[in-house]
Amino acid sequence: MTFIDGSVEQPVDLQTLRQAGKNARIKGFVHNIRDMGEFSFLILRTGAYTLQCVYNPTYSKTPLDGLREGTCIEVCGEAVDEPRAQNGFELHIVDFTVISSPAEEYPFAINKKYLNLNIDTNLDHRPLTLRNPRQRAIFKIQEAVADGFADFMRQNGFTQMHTPKIVSAGAEGGANIFHLDYFDTKAFLNQSPQFYKQMMVGVFERVFEIAPVFRAEKHHTSRHLNEYVGLDFEMGFISGMEDVMAMETAMLRHLFAYVQAHCLEELAMWKVDVPVVDKIPAFTFMQAREIIEKLGRKPGKWDLEPDDEVALCDHVKRECDSDLVFITHFPAAKRPFYAMDDPTDERFALSFDLLFRGLEITTGGQRIHDYNEQVDKMRRMGLDPADFASYLMAHKYGLPPHGGLGIGLERLVMKLMGLKNVREASLFPRDTGRLQP
Amino acid sequence: MTFIDGSVEQPVDLQTLRQAGKNARIKGFVHNIRDMGEFSFLILRTGAYTLQCVYNPTYSKTPLDGLREGTCIEVCGEAVDEPRAQNGFELHIVDFTVISSPAEEYPFAINKKYLNLNIDTNLDHRPLTLRNPRQRAIFKIQEAVADGFADFMRQNGFTQMHTPKIVSAGAEGGANIFHLDYFDTKAFLNQSPQFYKQMMVGVFERVFEIAPVFRAEKHHTSRHLNEYVGLDFEMGFISGMEDVMAMETAMLRHLFAYVQAHCLEELAMWKVDVPVVDKIPAFTFMQAREIIEKLGRKPGKWDLEPDDEVALCDHVKRECDSDLVFITHFPAAKRPFYAMDDPTDERFALSFDLLFRGLEITTGGQRIHDYNEQVDKMRRMGLDPADFASYLMAHKYGLPPHGGLGIGLERLVMKLMGLKNVREASLFPRDTGRLQP
Repeated sequence: MTFIDGSVEQPVDLQTLRQAGKNARIKGFVHNIRDMGEFSFLILRTGAYTLQCVYNPTYSKTPLDGLREGTCIEVCGEAVDEPRAQNGFELHIVDFTVISSPAEEYPFAINKKYLNLNIDTNLDHRPLTLRNPRQRAIFKIQEAVADGFADFMRQNGFTQMHTPKIVSAGAEGGANIFHLDYFDTKAFLNQSPQFYKQMMVGVFERVFEIAPVFRAEKHHTSRHLNEYVGLDFEMGFISGMEDVMAMETAMLRHLFAYVQAHCLEELAMWKVDVPVVDKIPAFTFMQAREIIEKLGRKPGKWDLEPDDEVALCDHVKRECDSDLVFITHFPAAKRPFYAMDDPTDERFALSFDLLFRGLEITTGGQRIHDYNEQVDKMRRMGLDPADFASYLMAHKYGLPPHGGLGIGLERLVMKLMGLKNVREASLFPRDTGRLQP
Repeated sequence: MTFIDGSVEQPVDLQTLRQAGKNARIKGFVHNIRDMGEFSFLILRTGAYTLQCVYNPTYSKTPLDGLREGTCIEVCGEAVDEPRAQNGFELHIVDFTVISSPAEEYPFAINKKYLNLNIDTNLDHRPLTLRNPRQRAIFKIQEAVADGFADFMRQNGFTQMHTPKIVSAGAEGGANIFHLDYFDTKAFLNQSPQFYKQMMVGVFERVFEIAPVFRAEKHHTSRHLNEYVGLDFEMGFISGMEDVMAMETAMLRHLFAYVQAHCLEELAMWKVDVPVVDKIPAFTFMQAREIIEKLGRKPGKWDLEPDDEVALCDHVKRECDSDLVFITHFPAAKRPFYAMDDPTDERFALSFDLLFRGLEITTGGQRIHDYNEQVDKMRRMGLDPADFASYLMAHKYGLPPHGGLGIGLERLVMKLMGLKNVREASLFPRDTGRLQP
């Protein structure tokens, strides 16, 4: 028998390394070697940063011969101030040890600032291309976006939950759902935690979830993924959908400030223009259509077309200097059965989208909380309430007025960072033709 | 056009409510009404607590007639100190407004301290049974367990990531995998983020994920779920699997302290005995077999049987006063292809389990990082390396020695709280016969 006492080492950060002076030790990947004649630069890549190390025969014991990119080494040396180096200091290599060696040379350079690969080559080689510092920075920003969301939710009394992804009926219905063999029966992959969020309003009043969402959409565009990460919340005891929109406004204000505070270096690397959220303008769908017409375009009758969303956002940016705009009161016929219709005009639903820099990133709204009203609406839409018995249990035994929304994490990161394709904001994206890596 | 300014209301906490004195206002569910003759108690349930309110004709305007459980109301009244009340004060109802009404009476009482329902009735009525304060407390503790995990990981330089659940090959192989129709091809639901964790060691060195994991196991026991939440981490530049075990030890120490600090009331409600983690004893598989034999049992040859795990944990509790025990060096033949064999004795793998109060909650170990070694082992095990080309890209282009582990969130909560069935620790559990709610 032995005992494990829980002594763990923190990764060595740049400040600690610099202060270590002559006793600096650091492990990492060989990222780049540049032979300068008299001496060589070795750029070491750790999980958090890159570091300029210098081989010079006057103080280095072992030549760098045969070290190739991807080799894992431990360097012992001296941290020396050097204003021209990216971190303000460099490491004079006294000696190094090889920890592990790659089997092959990289098929292309990942140590250039810009990868300059086409998107498919990038995605096909994800275990490699993500090692590029600019590529991996996307996912430090993605992490901060999700953390900023969770941080705000907790501060505002929301409980984080985990709901099942294998379900007996999809939340959005329709054909865009993945089918699954589940032992001796059929099941589906959930299109949204909608039903569970509503059930849980009866339990915790305010809930949120960060989890995968599955959509079997056949669209192959730069903004669709077939599996994405949903940032979802739902809240009870609202006065109207404006309470949900206000919560999203406050949340985004917090989220962007959080990203700003936690990702200084990554934001600088990408020259990200982080929006400062003050008030967000809101138009009804009919108002939005008018604007789109005035812009010389022909708007869709039931929904906004992608190009109309771009035109509308450009207009709002010019007129209100806002990167965000809410569109409310969509035609009820095109919204799901759980959406509450506007009691003052039942042609429209109390539902909204949020557009960010030309792209829809959120759909949300107020839901029906009254049991009989929900059952009636299901029947009018040709649905059998018996198929939704366990969901309707929440309504039957009492639910307060409530609403919520879902945000696509990858789309939010895409538009925040100005990426051209949503796949760039997914570690290992899934689309109609891509199941690997 | 209107503007949404992001003014949001925090839920009213008990302290704020108490300090509001004569101006107390609070929204919630009618949880219980008890007619005491001269007056009545109305227990109001919010998303976070229950509150004793008093109807008394001397100060209450409107009788409680017809109010039933599940009705959502807003109460206006006076917060008055009352040492006998659970929160140290009660609310004298001046008036109330009905916000929404349920369509039907609850089919059973959820306002008793103990639900006393059989597990299937409980699970069939989840939208209702979770409203019981003791039931929902399980999920506040579950939330704190996951938060405590994430909190520790971040403090120790791990990056949180989101990896796909729809995959072209399962991480664990074998028959225990769900099949999926993916457009014109076949796909699977991932059994673990194992491959992605390893790929990402080459990117961030240390990564973690909290996400659903899918296992098509036909076991119908009190400790199996077919979908559960995996707490996973992986770390690079380790000296051996002991580094991973040390990280888990430190993590659990932090996690349990975190739960202790964040769930005072819920822990008291369930009389939870939260372990204080100091050192965790570790036995090799062969040592564990010897102990099990000495205990008069016949141990399994390749793995520990569930009953042996219970007996071993009882023994360790008696001898070392530890609720946790590591078992290391399992027979290599029964461990997956990515497990590193012990170079000093190749019959055994550098892999370990962690048992907690009689149940395995973790499997982890050191992985193979060398490309040729991994390819050779795959071939020896009858696997075709070509089927794992994108996974092996990580090894081919260089990986440091690394290892990691996975923890089942529901199992951890089950054993922490002393629940009899893992389903009780899942909001909406999935088993071989359960797809609803």
